[in-house]
Amino acid sequence: MVLETPLVQRAIIVVIVVNAVTIGCETSSFLMERAGGLLHAVDRIALAIFAAEIVARLYAYGRKFFADPWNWFDTVIVVIALVPASGPTSVLRALRILRALRLVSAVPSMRRVVGALLAAVPGMASIIGLLVLMVYIAAVIATKLFGEIVPERFDELPRSLFTLFQIMTGDDWGNVAQEVMKEKPWAWLFFIAYILMSTFVALNLFIAVVVNAMNDTEPSTAEARTQAELAEVKED
Amino acid sequence: MVLETPLVQRAIIVVIVVNAVTIGCETSSFLMERAGGLLHAVDRIALAIFAAEIVARLYAYGRKFFADPWNWFDTVIVVIALVPASGPTSVLRALRILRALRLVSAVPSMRRVVGALLAAVPGMASIIGLLVLMVYIAAVIATKLFGEIVPERFDELPRSLFTLFQIMTGDDWGNVAQEVMKEKPWAWLFFIAYILMSTFVALNLFIAVVVNAMNDTEPSTAEARTQAELAEVKED
Amino acid sequence: MVLETPLVQRAIIVVIVVNAVTIGCETSSFLMERAGGLLHAVDRIALAIFAAEIVARLYAYGRKFFADPWNWFDTVIVVIALVPASGPTSVLRALRILRALRLVSAVPSMRRVVGALLAAVPGMASIIGLLVLMVYIAAVIATKLFGEIVPERFDELPRSLFTLFQIMTGDDWGNVAQEVMKEKPWAWLFFIAYILMSTFVALNLFIAVVVNAMNDTEPSTAEARTQAELAEVKED
Amino acid sequence: MVLETPLVQRAIIVVIVVNAVTIGCETSSFLMERAGGLLHAVDRIALAIFAAEIVARLYAYGRKFFADPWNWFDTVIVVIALVPASGPTSVLRALRILRALRLVSAVPSMRRVVGALLAAVPGMASIIGLLVLMVYIAAVIATKLFGEIVPERFDELPRSLFTLFQIMTGDDWGNVAQEVMKEKPWAWLFFIAYILMSTFVALNLFIAVVVNAMNDTEPSTAEARTQAELAEVKED
Repeated sequence: MVLETPLVQRAIIVVIVVNAVTIGCETSSFLMERAGGLLHAVDRIALAIFAAEIVARLYAYGRKFFADPWNWFDTVIVVIALVPASGPTSVLRALRILRALRLVSAVPSMRRVVGALLAAVPGMASIIGLLVLMVYIAAVIATKLFGEIVPERFDELPRSLFTLFQIMTGDDWGNVAQEVMKEKPWAWLFFIAYILMSTFVALNLFIAVVVNAMNDTEPSTAEARTQAELAEVKED
Repeated sequence: MVLETPLVQRAIIVVIVVNAVTIGCETSSFLMERAGGLLHAVDRIALAIFAAEIVARLYAYGRKFFADPWNWFDTVIVVIALVPASGPTSVLRALRILRALRLVSAVPSMRRVVGALLAAVPGMASIIGLLVLMVYIAAVIATKLFGEIVPERFDELPRSLFTLFQIMTGDDWGNVAQEVMKEKPWAWLFFIAYILMSTFVALNLFIAVVVNAMNDTEPSTAEARTQAELAEVKED
Repeated sequence: MVLETPLVQRAIIVVIVVNAVTIGCETSSFLMERAGGLLHAVDRIALAIFAAEIVARLYAYGRKFFADPWNWFDTVIVVIALVPASGPTSVLRALRILRALRLVSAVPSMRRVVGALLAAVPGMASIIGLLVLMVYIAAVIATKLFGEIVPERFDELPRSLFTLFQIMTGDDWGNVAQEVMKEKPWAWLFFIAYILMSTFVALNLFIAVVVNAMNDTEPSTAEARTQAELAEVKED
Repeated sequence: MVLETPLVQRAIIVVIVVNAVTIGCETSSFLMERAGGLLHAVDRIALAIFAAEIVARLYAYGRKFFADPWNWFDTVIVVIALVPASGPTSVLRALRILRALRLVSAVPSMRRVVGALLAAVPGMASIIGLLVLMVYIAAVIATKLFGEIVPERFDELPRSLFTLFQIMTGDDWGNVAQEVMKEKPWAWLFFIAYILMSTFVALNLFIAVVVNAMNDTEPSTAEARTQAELAEVKED
């Protein structure tokens, strides 16, 4: 089909990249004053090309179009851009740049990478669940014990969850802990236990991903050679 | 046994999740004003269900109940909640949320994950011991050398231990080092040596865990195939 | 050839190290006052030796000289040093220390390490592309949504790119997020999603490198032994 | 020999631990006022036991004593403690706690761990060399370019080395970069290039250690089984 010839696919990739650059340029008031009209024009042309491409694909594949999740992905991204952006939907206007994600569906090697990333998620579900449970439990405890001492960090459950996520990433946790320890000197126990446990679980999450990735890869050259020689033995 | 039918087990999981959410809601003064009675009622019902479940299991299994450490785990969690929480035991009241940990013992895949995490600990004992020894030695040295210069970081051994744990996580160590270096310019030697050594040991701790995890996993497909073919060779 | 005898090569390495040290010493005003003339003299002699060595190699190998990229590398580094450094080229003068990189081309084991590092890059291209795309999209969104609230972090696309790179390294992101959240309380969603996604992709970048490194290494001793025994079986 | 009976070895371990605790207690002015005499007495007795043990070992093994590096290690640690600590040697007095390191030589599993750590160092030499070279080159460039702008970070080569080591650990680099960028807006290029390159090299250092560790471990169960079956095939 004409849509799948390398020339058309490369042209689409060029349009995506050009469009991503023009949307980036639109954030600059300097460029908007001088070339705002051009930028908007390019944007509208690119959007028209994307819409036309999807309609063409829909026409060409018929029902099969909806069987490929990447087609859904492309359609949602283009539809977001078509929603009229006024007042309360200014966030949607900012999300127009998500169109650059079409690069992922247009470049086969990126498609494979994202596919591999998503395929790794189910194997991590139990450990992610454990991590979320740990953060939730720690946030409830922190809100009850430290909520009145350091209200700007722990006054409500959502803020405690944010603070504990921040501590898990290791950012500025010493200061948070020391603020609390001024009133409750034993609070180091809570923070050190939380850091050790969340690091340990996150480490095992990481290991689970590595071990999965290892087992999925092709047999190494050495193993392949062993097998080839086994085949010969059998033939004898 | 009726306690192990999927329906009952799923019901228990629902009760655990609902209870975890209501304990979380109790931290919000807004929700407590409006629905405090309801939240407390749900909490007491959930606790009654947990207690009843444990009694039922105790009745059903008899002595075997105590052979499974997860049963001990569940029992301790429920007993903590039954302790009357007044004055000095307000910490215990905050620990009620630990009941959410029953999710771990109720969901088989989480049980396996936690089991795997705990199984990794003994193999790490020597390196953890080495790390603790290093932090302890560094804390004694830092207390003696820097205790009078930066008392808010190093005045007593416990505070030095806390500061050095913080430095090991890489949080804000530059500022701590610079405060000390104002008085003792050669202190960079201590901090850089400490960071390099603790990072190196922690890295090897990490590697030990990865190597263990690798060796415990199933033989990879390639190896399995090699073995299957070997079996055939032997049969010939 | 005389240029490749161990003695000459060791002499060149000594000249490189001595020159790296003298360029370092030139940054000290104390040493420059006392021994500035000596330092400059050593520098000029070292440069003459490097230039002579390259001319000699060029003479000896002829056209083959340009086939080895390390020769290009050495030539560029020496040419940079020969450019007269005045006014606007003061940056070039600071880059003279790049001559110390000749150590990499002069020591075979370092050459191998750098070769291995560069060989790992193509396999990472797709994931690096994905990471760059993510940071770019996040920067455009952040500029549009937060540009007016925290102009010192997000006023223009380049500054947003810098801030988001900083957040990806985990440095001080809690403060950036909290500044934004004063005006837009829902901004935690953006920051947490960005951190989780960029960490996850960076993690997979890392895993890709490890898996590649694993497959490239020599067959392990155990596998080697298996193969040796297979060879014997076949001989029987 | 009597020194190697489990009972004697366990007694020595107990003395090491008790001594480590008493040296830690000496940092507390509260405990020193109340039990200073006791702490000093325990310290002197422990030192006498260590000295006696070394003399006994020296007597028992004769020349072979000096063949084991752990014996050197123990001797140096005890000798440090015997040096009279006055005035300028107050640092030596703080180093008395290094005696706790005798725990490493006394516990066989710790000895193995430290042995494994040290055995990993030679394989990392080239990459560590590359990393040191990179930090040195970056420090010379930073001193020349930024030395006058932010003198408290980059005025002299040693301070630049410290600052760049701090940046490599990711601590507070955003602030350092922003201070410099006020004067030289293009400085982000230097900092981002430095962070990307040092992280990439450090990552490969890490991978080299993992790959080495993997290859050194015992053949996995699957491989062992393959070999066992191969042995059977040959016997047929």
